Amino acid sequence: MIGKLSEEDRAVALADLPQWTSVAEPEGISRRFTFTDFVGAFGFMTRVAILAEKADHHPEWSNVYNRVDILLTTHDAGGLSQRDIDLAHAIDALAD
Amino acid sequence: MIGKLSEEDRAVALADLPQWTSVAEPEGISRRFTFTDFVGAFGFMTRVAILAEKADHHPEWSNVYNRVDILLTTHDAGGLSQRDIDLAHAIDALAD
Repeated sequence: MIGKLSEEDRAVALADLPQWTSVAEPEGISRRFTFTDFVGAFGFMTRVAILAEKADHHPEWSNVYNRVDILLTTHDAGGLSQRDIDLAHAIDALAD
Repeated sequence: MIGKLSEEDRAVALADLPQWTSVAEPEGISRRFTFTDFVGAFGFMTRVAILAEKADHHPEWSNVYNRVDILLTTHDAGGLSQRDIDLAHAIDALAD
């Protein structure tokens, strides 16, 4: 079972994820992605879905037309874990 | 441009969509779908995405692991329109 990051590890990890915002409840990180249209947004979601399934770690996310909001948190850890950090980096690599 | 359904048309339409719940803000209808796992949920989303794009009418939706929450509303109409009703029936046909 994976643990929640310490304050210090969290700060170090988030310094490398400048486009992600800390969320308090549930404790995690979020990022909004905007695309030209729905097909752009859903195409991105499909790529993230495959990454997430491979990592066996899944986002909480929503989509409205060209916008995708992703929240990463680790329920088993009761907060932000290394799994969230790793998935955030993988998602950034897809998006940028 | 499509208009919002009258109270009467809305009541008639919703009688045929017993698994959908009225939502006040934004005015629309919602339904929760639950699957065995993430792949089941995202596979369903992919089928809905293609339907929605074909209809040029897109849901507001979210996914957490095996759960998909769909809200249908028509921003241009300021509420529930026939497009939402048609898309709800198409989604029910996929899901059931």
